Amino acid sequence: MRIALDAMGTDDAPSSEVEGAVAAVEADVGVHVLLVGDRTAIAGALSRFPRRNRITVVHAPDRVMASDTPTSALRRPGSSINVGLSLQKAGDADAFVSAGSTGAVMAASVVLLRPLRGVDRPPVATVFPTDHGPTLVADVGANIECKPRQLVEFARLGAIYMQDLQGLESPRVGLLNVGTESEKGTEVLQAAYRLLAGSGLNFVGNVEGGDILRHACDVAVCDGFTGNILLKFYESVAAFVVRKLAPPGLRGNGLREEIQDRLRDLDYAEHGGAPLLGVNGVSVICHGRSSPRAIKAGIGVAARAVRSGMVAHMARDLAAARESQV
Amino acid sequence: MRIALDAMGTDDAPSSEVEGAVAAVEADVGVHVLLVGDRTAIAGALSRFPRRNRITVVHAPDRVMASDTPTSALRRPGSSINVGLSLQKAGDADAFVSAGSTGAVMAASVVLLRPLRGVDRPPVATVFPTDHGPTLVADVGANIECKPRQLVEFARLGAIYMQDLQGLESPRVGLLNVGTESEKGTEVLQAAYRLLAGSGLNFVGNVEGGDILRHACDVAVCDGFTGNILLKFYESVAAFVVRKLAPPGLRGNGLREEIQDRLRDLDYAEHGGAPLLGVNGVSVICHGRSSPRAIKAGIGVAARAVRSGMVAHMARDLAAARESQV
Repeated sequence: MRIALDAMGTDDAPSSEVEGAVAAVEADVGVHVLLVGDRTAIAGALSRFPRRNRITVVHAPDRVMASDTPTSALRRPGSSINVGLSLQKAGDADAFVSAGSTGAVMAASVVLLRPLRGVDRPPVATVFPTDHGPTLVADVGANIECKPRQLVEFARLGAIYMQDLQGLESPRVGLLNVGTESEKGTEVLQAAYRLLAGSGLNFVGNVEGGDILRHACDVAVCDGFTGNILLKFYESVAAFVVRKLAPPGLRGNGLREEIQDRLRDLDYAEHGGAPLLGVNGVSVICHGRSSPRAIKAGIGVAARAVRSGMVAHMARDLAAARESQV
Repeated sequence: MRIALDAMGTDDAPSSEVEGAVAAVEADVGVHVLLVGDRTAIAGALSRFPRRNRITVVHAPDRVMASDTPTSALRRPGSSINVGLSLQKAGDADAFVSAGSTGAVMAASVVLLRPLRGVDRPPVATVFPTDHGPTLVADVGANIECKPRQLVEFARLGAIYMQDLQGLESPRVGLLNVGTESEKGTEVLQAAYRLLAGSGLNFVGNVEGGDILRHACDVAVCDGFTGNILLKFYESVAAFVVRKLAPPGLRGNGLREEIQDRLRDLDYAEHGGAPLLGVNGVSVICHGRSSPRAIKAGIGVAARAVRSGMVAHMARDLAAARESQV
């Protein structure tokens, strides 16, 4: 399969992207990476690697700048984001991966790939690693305010993601709330609770903030505001704990490194970034500070999504949900 | 000063409360604890302690049950919560501390102590310990949905709390949001941003989820929904990290205990529970699983609030804010 990778997304682009792409094709013989971006910069970064089978450079004359809004980014047809997504739209790539601006990737993915029928506004989902297995949180920032029906869409899409990419038979869906009783939270959440209870999903009810790391559900549904605050908080925890447990200059044989290594698992970037769910294609958004390892993981997520037929599965499921409501 | 302590609040009441009270009066010669609850049960727990100067038992014939709602709890005039708060209302105690149901303590505090003039709905605030100093988050659960004006009240009350209890001259106030730009977030947050910018507070703008543990502000303002999700998530982090870094059965000389000990600082319960801000009195809510150490810390917070004249300070500040708006 061909995966278009935005080579201009990370803070030290295209170096992380190129190294991540090389690692990804080495790890998976079925993957061919299209490196999309400035051809000269990419060639420079690639020159460090002698072997580069299944890597092709696709030139993009422009790039999305930090000062761009999602809307102004759309008006750069030659940007690596727009060129990369257009490859997928044209059938020349099976998936797109970018560590560029989340807003820009999201907007361009929705405009170019289009939402699946039955999806109002695609959510961005992220896996929170726990020691009992991953918990998918959706939405983590695409939709700041949500209607009850949208939260059910997030649940439906998230459940399929966990079925197809994590091999769960019947993912447990929880609604993130301030208490477990059905009447807790805002009116939107109360209505979402009722809809989820009748959705046919494996709805386990409301879950609280502390239930995510306890793995009380496989998919935690929330609006993008709550999810974004939680995700960014979570991202900061690993760094905090390392500072707390192993301050710089700690004596001892490698304890600091040992702790950092064990906590690497807390780093959601290592788990492959955040897929945009419910578009007619595969679009994976990685952290702007992604390491080569994180880029490789993002490509891995995209590859699993393609192989599992996730998008067709979502389309079928949404159609069935419409049927059952008629 | 006299601090009324609900002796029936924790999961193993009154044992934790009694032990915490004994420790608190030993640590602070200015503190006299009124243990409020079932006199027989309290006497039993107290019998383990030979010295108990400055501890008085006040009988309360009833208690709030787990099945009570905040409203039904109000209809138990003989409960330890209502008796304890009534002592403060009557001037027989200077503060109230409880590890009982947050909703019940909050409702009874508002009804019995009354909000200060200018406070719409008092928030519950909690200190998130960071390695650079504490960050106060308000609200963490009292008000699920908030108007812009309420968020400004939380900021004002939180800033005074940090002035009086942490000795900060001009606490930095941040608005918890999904980005730093003023136009980020919901309309409520955009309006709150504008109000905070003109409030006279030391407003540092929007802060993101990751900024709390980075200590980008001293007071992080949010609605009670967001704060509650975040607080419960935070509570679960320490346990998660211990499992991750030091699984049970880990070999090595005391590493697990060492890690637990260093992470104790992450436990917000150790920092004295959550004060209800903006009522005409001092009411501190501790976690239902509070250890004696956490109860002692809660009493310590109440004592500092009383000594600093926090409530009068808040009333003056609210009056001045009203003046400046006229």
